[in-house]
Amino acid sequence: MPTSTYRVEGMTCGHCVAAVTAELSKLPGVEDVGVDLVPDGISTVTVTGEGAPELDQVRAAIDEAGYALADKPG
Amino acid sequence: MPTSTYRVEGMTCGHCVAAVTAELSKLPGVEDVGVDLVPDGISTVTVTGEGAPELDQVRAAIDEAGYALADKPG
Repeated sequence: MPTSTYRVEGMTCGHCVAAVTAELSKLPGVEDVGVDLVPDGISTVTVTGEGAPELDQVRAAIDEAGYALADKPG
Repeated sequence: MPTSTYRVEGMTCGHCVAAVTAELSKLPGVEDVGVDLVPDGISTVTVTGEGAPELDQVRAAIDEAGYALADKPG
């Protein structure tokens, strides 16, 4: 199944992982969300699903959770 | 009103603050909880109320939230 990865700033703990996972899971077409948490740096978020969401949707979901995409794509 | 302060390890973000505040607020006699968040170190938690909870109760509440009192009292 297709996967996309994103670099996310500001995630520090399991609560942050849960918040980002919950927001991304709401997007249509998303079947699984994985997070490689890097508390002092840039975390990697992997979204899996057929018909992956647009970057703008992903950006908005991560913003809604209280975080931000890092400038450069992962 | 009497206040007690505690040193808590492992709190990194606003979600952590919310979790600790919620657990401590459940204790009898606690009227207010304040947190000075130090993401890379020891955060200071202040509990205000008449009839402050015992240290063991505070320790248990912080443990329930997923954190730990630092070894030395604040």
